[in-house]
Amino acid sequence: MNRHLVSINDLTKDDAILILDTAKELAQISDRPVKKLPTLRGRTIVNLFFEDSTRTRISFEAAAKRLSADVINFSAKGSSVSKGESLKDTAQTLQSMGADAVVIRHPASGAPNLLASRNWINAVVINAGDGTHEHPTQALLDSYTIRKHLKNNQGDLSGLRIAIVGDILHSRVARSNALLIKKLGATPVLVAPPTLMPKGINDWECDFSFNLDEIIENVDSVMMLRVQQERMTAAYFPTAREYSRNFGLNSARLKKMKKNALVLHPGPMNRGMEITAEVADSTNSVVIEQVANGVSVRMAVLYLLLGGPQNEAESGN
Amino acid sequence: MNRHLVSINDLTKDDAILILDTAKELAQISDRPVKKLPTLRGRTIVNLFFEDSTRTRISFEAAAKRLSADVINFSAKGSSVSKGESLKDTAQTLQSMGADAVVIRHPASGAPNLLASRNWINAVVINAGDGTHEHPTQALLDSYTIRKHLKNNQGDLSGLRIAIVGDILHSRVARSNALLIKKLGATPVLVAPPTLMPKGINDWECDFSFNLDEIIENVDSVMMLRVQQERMTAAYFPTAREYSRNFGLNSARLKKMKKNALVLHPGPMNRGMEITAEVADSTNSVVIEQVANGVSVRMAVLYLLLGGPQNEAESGN
Amino acid sequence: MNRHLVSINDLTKDDAILILDTAKELAQISDRPVKKLPTLRGRTIVNLFFEDSTRTRISFEAAAKRLSADVINFSAKGSSVSKGESLKDTAQTLQSMGADAVVIRHPASGAPNLLASRNWINAVVINAGDGTHEHPTQALLDSYTIRKHLKNNQGDLSGLRIAIVGDILHSRVARSNALLIKKLGATPVLVAPPTLMPKGINDWECDFSFNLDEIIENVDSVMMLRVQQERMTAAYFPTAREYSRNFGLNSARLKKMKKNALVLHPGPMNRGMEITAEVADSTNSVVIEQVANGVSVRMAVLYLLLGGPQNEAESGN
Repeated sequence: MNRHLVSINDLTKDDAILILDTAKELAQISDRPVKKLPTLRGRTIVNLFFEDSTRTRISFEAAAKRLSADVINFSAKGSSVSKGESLKDTAQTLQSMGADAVVIRHPASGAPNLLASRNWINAVVINAGDGTHEHPTQALLDSYTIRKHLKNNQGDLSGLRIAIVGDILHSRVARSNALLIKKLGATPVLVAPPTLMPKGINDWECDFSFNLDEIIENVDSVMMLRVQQERMTAAYFPTAREYSRNFGLNSARLKKMKKNALVLHPGPMNRGMEITAEVADSTNSVVIEQVANGVSVRMAVLYLLLGGPQNEAESGN
Repeated sequence: MNRHLVSINDLTKDDAILILDTAKELAQISDRPVKKLPTLRGRTIVNLFFEDSTRTRISFEAAAKRLSADVINFSAKGSSVSKGESLKDTAQTLQSMGADAVVIRHPASGAPNLLASRNWINAVVINAGDGTHEHPTQALLDSYTIRKHLKNNQGDLSGLRIAIVGDILHSRVARSNALLIKKLGATPVLVAPPTLMPKGINDWECDFSFNLDEIIENVDSVMMLRVQQERMTAAYFPTAREYSRNFGLNSARLKKMKKNALVLHPGPMNRGMEITAEVADSTNSVVIEQVANGVSVRMAVLYLLLGGPQNEAESGN
Repeated sequence: MNRHLVSINDLTKDDAILILDTAKELAQISDRPVKKLPTLRGRTIVNLFFEDSTRTRISFEAAAKRLSADVINFSAKGSSVSKGESLKDTAQTLQSMGADAVVIRHPASGAPNLLASRNWINAVVINAGDGTHEHPTQALLDSYTIRKHLKNNQGDLSGLRIAIVGDILHSRVARSNALLIKKLGATPVLVAPPTLMPKGINDWECDFSFNLDEIIENVDSVMMLRVQQERMTAAYFPTAREYSRNFGLNSARLKKMKKNALVLHPGPMNRGMEITAEVADSTNSVVIEQVANGVSVRMAVLYLLLGGPQNEAESGN
């Protein structure tokens, strides 16, 4: 396995399945009264967040702590980064302080790749979302959730059609999911208004549509993307009402879907915008479960990238 | 015992005494060089703070860590909450990440009650202060402190008269204390200017007065409430000088008090406003001790609500 | 050893060498897969930061966690301090919550000294930088780094000449380093434009110069100070270009230096201002290593001040 996780492209199909299988094993820990393994005792995970994201930060923090790692949260706000320190200096500083892994969230697409590719640091680099580029652990938890329900929690996703609906153009979640779904043998179906569909969409080698109703009956799951309020005012964005009517998931559309089709959302949801409250709370919705699976998947990623089973003996526990 | 602690009304008299007795036991740990019990190892406590309160947050954090729990701090500032996420979604997210207890501070009265009563989550809910409603662990630590000094650290508070002085109208500390003091068999004496006394004060079934000097000689302890500077400008508030002269605790008033009467304050104090520096630093003052007792009482609450003694065996330590 | 570390003056020469020797031992832990000693288990270190300093805070946090201490981060922003609480009340609150050591960063020179000298608290006080006064652990890590390279990692620094270059007037790093370098038997050479040299520089009992080129060939190491951008606009400060030309360390000056001379910088660097990128990344530069040594030195300080070896038995691990 590649020693960093910056993009879904860093993973082979077997790597991806190994992560999902490992997450399945580790998920059992979450059901125990003592949710803790000694595996990463004495290791330090730094959450290096240049953007606020409490959910993702806490998910990685919970994952690291369940593996007994020490966690240091570094918010770039008010840090020397705002005094003009370069990403390189920040990274080398963290590594010198003993970081074994750097979980990085950055508004600039490509920042985690810079970290991973320039030999600035030895620490493992994990992309927790960079600009409009990728968010690989989100895709892994989404595929984990789908596999659990529709594939008996094993193997790949072959044969499934998974719709991804919303602002595909700007979504790192969409991009990572499209890559991973294909890798796992399923077919992504990208749905967006024309202004929010990437120009080179044909190169994505995915199915796509500008009409949600056209495809809703023939998919096995629907991933709704969060509408970023700050983008709503932009010229390419329809009005909220129009967006909601054409691309929101409501009860009428849910009824047309396959009976066991899943509804996913990376959270936090805009209830009433891209998804109605009824759908969010329906039995098809796995939104809450996605969060729990996110911790398991991130445990698996940390476990595998920080050395996996062979390091357990060394940890002396 | 009720599985949540939202209000003092969640506790029977026996529950309250059990918490104080347990805190007494746990306080001994704080005197050891290794201030740590393995009781809550592998459990996760989330501090979900929608209002800044470093003191209360750190007190719960210290309590949880002494019991070996993992602590995750979630400040709602800059989180998805500010992106419009509902309390329900936030809570379910935290629970899905493995929270065994959610310690919640919220500016809206009733928010913790919503969390505890709607079956949104299985986690234990502990109210760390909600609007003008309640702050039950503050009341428990205050009664603990009084009981320790005036009741030989055991039983209830029967026979004592405890004054609570200040902005009763807006104070969650006053409300929780009035309820608990009564439950423990003592008599609360509420003291405030008429504009800061709740309208339905007769329903509180407490003694009350608009004149501090009138009651000061006949109480066994005085709890001074913090003046919230931001309320000073409001119409119902006297000027700072007038407030201080009529309702501040100064040396002259301290001299009139019973010799062993205690002076309490939830902190942080406005020295020179509701309390003079002399009184704050006098031998009657137990303000500093209250802080230490706060950690013990919160350890007791976490210990009892997260399963108590029967879970110790499981924790494998 | 003095029980607090507020100033380099708190240390005898033997104390300083003991800290460096202890850091050398503890540095070996950082090379192990499990970077963790049980020494301070059950102890609580509070990082009380009235100024932002992510680097220093994280360094102390990493040091404390490697010794198994619990760490509580207290940022004075948004805390009761901003509600007007006094330093005394804050400190006593932290102590009552069980702080065994308070690591304090404060914009006011003398604040840590107040804490340490007034008997307000029993906890150990460690100065993590106060105003323009001192930053003793920075000096210790700098001397550690120099000793490691130029003195075979043992003994003192006798015979060496160490230049400190930049805004000596306002630099707590310069002040602590000048004191420590002298204490360890070496000669500090202070270099600054006249407006940034302290008026009473003769009392410092150091060599000094207003001309970097004049001294560069005859020193064994150069410590470059960070230019504080916010001071650049002040009247006493040369323009950026002039400063950089006269007092910046560039390749031309590096060539004139002794072959094995070290280049140090406390970070974060302003590349292109006080140091060029070439010099920062040259083999003479030990800037990255300083960060790693900072963790070891802070581990040593925490270890020695919190009781040292005799407490290891008690920690039951």
